[in-house]
Amino acid sequence: MSSHFGQLFRISTYGESHGGGVGVVIDGCPPRIALSEDDIQKELDRRRPGQSALVTQRKESDKCRILSGVFEGQTLGTPIAVAVPNEDARSEAYAEMQTTFRPSHADFTYQAKYGVRAWPGGGRASARETVGRVAGGAVAKKVLGALFPKLEIVAYVKRIYQMEALIDPLIVTASEVESNPVRCPDAETAAEMATLIQSMRASGDSVGGVIECVVRHAPVGLGEPVFDKLEADLAKAMLSLPATKGFEIGSGFAGTLLTGSEHNDPFEMREGRVRTQTNRSGGVQGGISNGEIIFFRVAFKPTATIAQAQKTVTTTGEETELRARGRHDPCVLPRAVPMVEAMTALVLVDHALRQRGQNGDVAAQA
Amino acid sequence: MSSHFGQLFRISTYGESHGGGVGVVIDGCPPRIALSEDDIQKELDRRRPGQSALVTQRKESDKCRILSGVFEGQTLGTPIAVAVPNEDARSEAYAEMQTTFRPSHADFTYQAKYGVRAWPGGGRASARETVGRVAGGAVAKKVLGALFPKLEIVAYVKRIYQMEALIDPLIVTASEVESNPVRCPDAETAAEMATLIQSMRASGDSVGGVIECVVRHAPVGLGEPVFDKLEADLAKAMLSLPATKGFEIGSGFAGTLLTGSEHNDPFEMREGRVRTQTNRSGGVQGGISNGEIIFFRVAFKPTATIAQAQKTVTTTGEETELRARGRHDPCVLPRAVPMVEAMTALVLVDHALRQRGQNGDVAAQA
Amino acid sequence: MSSHFGQLFRISTYGESHGGGVGVVIDGCPPRIALSEDDIQKELDRRRPGQSALVTQRKESDKCRILSGVFEGQTLGTPIAVAVPNEDARSEAYAEMQTTFRPSHADFTYQAKYGVRAWPGGGRASARETVGRVAGGAVAKKVLGALFPKLEIVAYVKRIYQMEALIDPLIVTASEVESNPVRCPDAETAAEMATLIQSMRASGDSVGGVIECVVRHAPVGLGEPVFDKLEADLAKAMLSLPATKGFEIGSGFAGTLLTGSEHNDPFEMREGRVRTQTNRSGGVQGGISNGEIIFFRVAFKPTATIAQAQKTVTTTGEETELRARGRHDPCVLPRAVPMVEAMTALVLVDHALRQRGQNGDVAAQA
Amino acid sequence: MSSHFGQLFRISTYGESHGGGVGVVIDGCPPRIALSEDDIQKELDRRRPGQSALVTQRKESDKCRILSGVFEGQTLGTPIAVAVPNEDARSEAYAEMQTTFRPSHADFTYQAKYGVRAWPGGGRASARETVGRVAGGAVAKKVLGALFPKLEIVAYVKRIYQMEALIDPLIVTASEVESNPVRCPDAETAAEMATLIQSMRASGDSVGGVIECVVRHAPVGLGEPVFDKLEADLAKAMLSLPATKGFEIGSGFAGTLLTGSEHNDPFEMREGRVRTQTNRSGGVQGGISNGEIIFFRVAFKPTATIAQAQKTVTTTGEETELRARGRHDPCVLPRAVPMVEAMTALVLVDHALRQRGQNGDVAAQA
Repeated sequence: MSSHFGQLFRISTYGESHGGGVGVVIDGCPPRIALSEDDIQKELDRRRPGQSALVTQRKESDKCRILSGVFEGQTLGTPIAVAVPNEDARSEAYAEMQTTFRPSHADFTYQAKYGVRAWPGGGRASARETVGRVAGGAVAKKVLGALFPKLEIVAYVKRIYQMEALIDPLIVTASEVESNPVRCPDAETAAEMATLIQSMRASGDSVGGVIECVVRHAPVGLGEPVFDKLEADLAKAMLSLPATKGFEIGSGFAGTLLTGSEHNDPFEMREGRVRTQTNRSGGVQGGISNGEIIFFRVAFKPTATIAQAQKTVTTTGEETELRARGRHDPCVLPRAVPMVEAMTALVLVDHALRQRGQNGDVAAQA
Repeated sequence: MSSHFGQLFRISTYGESHGGGVGVVIDGCPPRIALSEDDIQKELDRRRPGQSALVTQRKESDKCRILSGVFEGQTLGTPIAVAVPNEDARSEAYAEMQTTFRPSHADFTYQAKYGVRAWPGGGRASARETVGRVAGGAVAKKVLGALFPKLEIVAYVKRIYQMEALIDPLIVTASEVESNPVRCPDAETAAEMATLIQSMRASGDSVGGVIECVVRHAPVGLGEPVFDKLEADLAKAMLSLPATKGFEIGSGFAGTLLTGSEHNDPFEMREGRVRTQTNRSGGVQGGISNGEIIFFRVAFKPTATIAQAQKTVTTTGEETELRARGRHDPCVLPRAVPMVEAMTALVLVDHALRQRGQNGDVAAQA
Repeated sequence: MSSHFGQLFRISTYGESHGGGVGVVIDGCPPRIALSEDDIQKELDRRRPGQSALVTQRKESDKCRILSGVFEGQTLGTPIAVAVPNEDARSEAYAEMQTTFRPSHADFTYQAKYGVRAWPGGGRASARETVGRVAGGAVAKKVLGALFPKLEIVAYVKRIYQMEALIDPLIVTASEVESNPVRCPDAETAAEMATLIQSMRASGDSVGGVIECVVRHAPVGLGEPVFDKLEADLAKAMLSLPATKGFEIGSGFAGTLLTGSEHNDPFEMREGRVRTQTNRSGGVQGGISNGEIIFFRVAFKPTATIAQAQKTVTTTGEETELRARGRHDPCVLPRAVPMVEAMTALVLVDHALRQRGQNGDVAAQA
Repeated sequence: MSSHFGQLFRISTYGESHGGGVGVVIDGCPPRIALSEDDIQKELDRRRPGQSALVTQRKESDKCRILSGVFEGQTLGTPIAVAVPNEDARSEAYAEMQTTFRPSHADFTYQAKYGVRAWPGGGRASARETVGRVAGGAVAKKVLGALFPKLEIVAYVKRIYQMEALIDPLIVTASEVESNPVRCPDAETAAEMATLIQSMRASGDSVGGVIECVVRHAPVGLGEPVFDKLEADLAKAMLSLPATKGFEIGSGFAGTLLTGSEHNDPFEMREGRVRTQTNRSGGVQGGISNGEIIFFRVAFKPTATIAQAQKTVTTTGEETELRARGRHDPCVLPRAVPMVEAMTALVLVDHALRQRGQNGDVAAQA
């Protein structure tokens, strides 16, 4: 189903940009995991509008409430419902959207598919739907922490437009990522990126870029042949995020410019474990994690909502011009970092539970 | 489940490289679709080993048999089982694989995950498993042909190693693709690619590259918000194929080097329909097909199996060297073209049935 | 997943007896169906505590709120979230439940399975979870009404303890069912049942019985071979309801006392359609609806919560006695009638969408 | 999907009565389970036609072949394909079925649903499809045996027509069940049942009855709230079997004739474990196994195929008479016993893996 994700740790999200609220129901969470609203709020705050001058100024406190599935600070094993009300939904700012299809948005396709759409703010196609993912991902992170105490998921802005940062995935930390509003742990490049984003807002334009994500200390054995390879589920997770256009793992597209003898990762023994000398595989071989660092990159297109005039058509088939007036992000990447982490956590925890279900205890393999 | 793909049109594949055979069970196929073993064989022959000098010389006729679900030349609506026996399974050529992990293969991860593995020929991780996908895809193509008579899926080799072909996705035809063993419709580049592949075989090395796939005349409305966006399901489908490292749709990674005003696709009216002037979206907006051409690219790494000596370790943790002796493809791309088409067809047909289930008749929208 | 039901029209419910609330997310609902909170409230009021002197006197207004998926009175095709807060949750009345396992309740099994449980009010095992089912069923009924305008689902109390009502499933109406608080359309027997239930409350005991459900004007063709036969999915739906112990369709268990020549339903032509002369099949043949009336019966055990003293054990393994003090129903059947209808509607709408997805337009077959 | 069953241990079956064969693909089986074709054949032989004078005399050796997923006698964790060819498919014996709908069979509903059907032998609606279930169940039994060495599943004929056997579910053994062709462990009643079945064959009529199934030494904790309660999944499994009309667990329909104080199962401590004094719950409370014996009953209608003349209609809407000529069972129950066990094993193993996935090691709870 279209708003469900995961097989054993399954989330079901709901909510439009304007309406009663957004949220998620998490089914299949293991019991006896410590969980509070703060654990979720912390991640939602990283995704929140208005968190810095670089992002949309829509005023949403995004305060979450856990309605079920947690008792006396612990998960029960039953569905965890997390609800976030919508607060600052100024539909009037979007009046033109009622009659005009915004270019490179989902207005036209939703209308064509369903014969109806919630035009204010983009409805279900708004990035506001990612509240449910991030809340679900926050719970997933808690479960992963309980199963694999050393596991770390760190995503960061690797490139914005033509500005590429220099970051070592082996050592980059979450606090470095959070040290600036761009969420690029290369401080110097981050400052230039911030300036670029501000200038884009000023000129009514937008930019995109690339987010890289690294998973350290994942156990061996996550991912399943044939269709549910770990990289396949990660690719789906990432391409399901708004504004994404590409995914690559390990050597990715650049790996096609090497020969096999250059590309293969030789095995060696290190500290009594089978390890690879290089890691062009990106931590996954045959669809299954091999104990090395998992890393991948996701391409985000420039924000479709821009203040410059654009050619488009109306819902009744007349050609017209549109100039966006709603509040929006001139660059989605800073707020997309927690989304990438959330989807990564959701993929990993689902595969961890599946691995345990079919093959027994997973902690032993970490 | 790991060997299942699709929600309404669901395939379940089975089979190892060496063993009783490989195959697929297709559940949920619409009834009254004309279907013969020839329809499936035609696609299997494009995937078959030994089809040209460029590919592995393993001798498999790959003759398929339909065991169920078809009666008097028509699908029944009940599961269609397609079986292909294994013929030329020379386990002795793989004897070293029993005790040695091949670099950048799945030997180690399968062993670690399951505590057991079918070492001859790579077992389930062998590209031989794709027989089931291609057979399922052949049936999917027949159903798509019945639902959308004009719909075309054409995949082709776009780049091998550093040789990139010039191909117009708007007009490239399947017969152009099939006109040479590389499956690159740019004949001149194809010839150079063939020479390169042969030289790689001679030197015991391998190469990878990029396959592009285009879908023309897809209806508006395929794909679902939020997680089952069309590009998300295509990404998963492609990254589940052996040897893939990346996926991008429309403008892809290169699209991140444009600003929003350069990247957006303006709408216009053309022949009474809403159309886009450019197609950086790649035919999908908000996760739903918009009636434009759908196109995407998939990165395939250089074949991991090479005849040169490589460092590796044994199953008992001793460091050693390995030199592959089994028959293999110095470049997987020519045989991967029908696999990419099959997975594309499987994604499209599943979404077509889901669209019809939730929203009514799909043919009207084509 | 345990709190998900349905494949195309899929509900995900959440909520414990005491906590933030209960609710449901409905994914896959067709768009452009008129839907209001009143449509849902109407069904919730039939399930509500305190609706009559016969049921539990817990004070819950059970006012629902639609948070998403509906815009300007119409479904959008996106997830519909319906939330109902908990109001009268007197945990203190259940203090003994913290340390004592109630006989024939889920306290022990939840504790054993999860190692934790929300002891107030039975947590997730409380019949309060059925709010989400009934809300989902209310939406399912609206969709069925749009697809098959003549389709009717009527459930009613057929037997309580040893009092069996005389009811003709061919003509019984919903308003007859609602004409008394027992929801038994045989008024005379209903009055006796009401007296019995009151006397059970007085003596601190409880009773069970049988609910019958009839579906009239269902189309031919709902249900799928092999595992998802219509009766199989109905059986699962019914046995998932709290306190159920049995299910039978058509001739049911009594049908085993006939020979084949007595039991078979001869076909005949009637008004140009293939019809059966008798209906021991209960409207389903080979797992697929045949256009006759669908009818089945569900056994509900006597309420486990009783005020009489019972032997039991504590969570620390000491034998003790328990006398229930929380508010409860001396007979669950009156409130279970809308639950049975809701689950029936959910099964039918899911199969209607699946039928349309695989086989094309369903309305034509009605 | 209609021919899939299970979530983690998932089977996908295929095959019609007449055609290339029948079989199953089992996905999600744990690795390193000893498995041979004999393990499966043993169960198939209990289901096989022609096994005694009481059943259909169709000549099918039903020899199975494992095509994948097993290597050197052990499961690999990858899909296990089991194939059984059709041998004695005399379509000519069924020629009338092409143009005439057999009463109380699936001929009419398949035709109406799909617009096409495999008329010889009933196609997919033939009990021949249960070969795949029984093969899958045989593998499930092996996995259960590895997880819970003491667990036993024993089904047996409890009643045929009006002849009810006296059997103690606490002690009945599989070898007692197999000691006569009726599969009724009460030898005296079994002999009378055999006589009755033979007389039914002689008179061209048929009979049905009730099969009871008991599971001993199941662990505590199998089954999930809310929809996937253990009894709900068992009910679905049983009602998916051909010819079934009812299911009841524990006290079942008869339990509705008791009051709550009579019906509740008091808890006590026994050998250091929480146990119930009575077992009206049938081993399941709140949808989760409680460590007591699980037992339930399934109603099978009299075989629809009878040799007496019956009124029916043709595919072109003319009224006619039909007298079955194909070989068939005058009573399905003896052959249905292994089917009931197979479906029970499939439900249990799926829940065991799900339990392990969400909640950790299951063996500890056994």
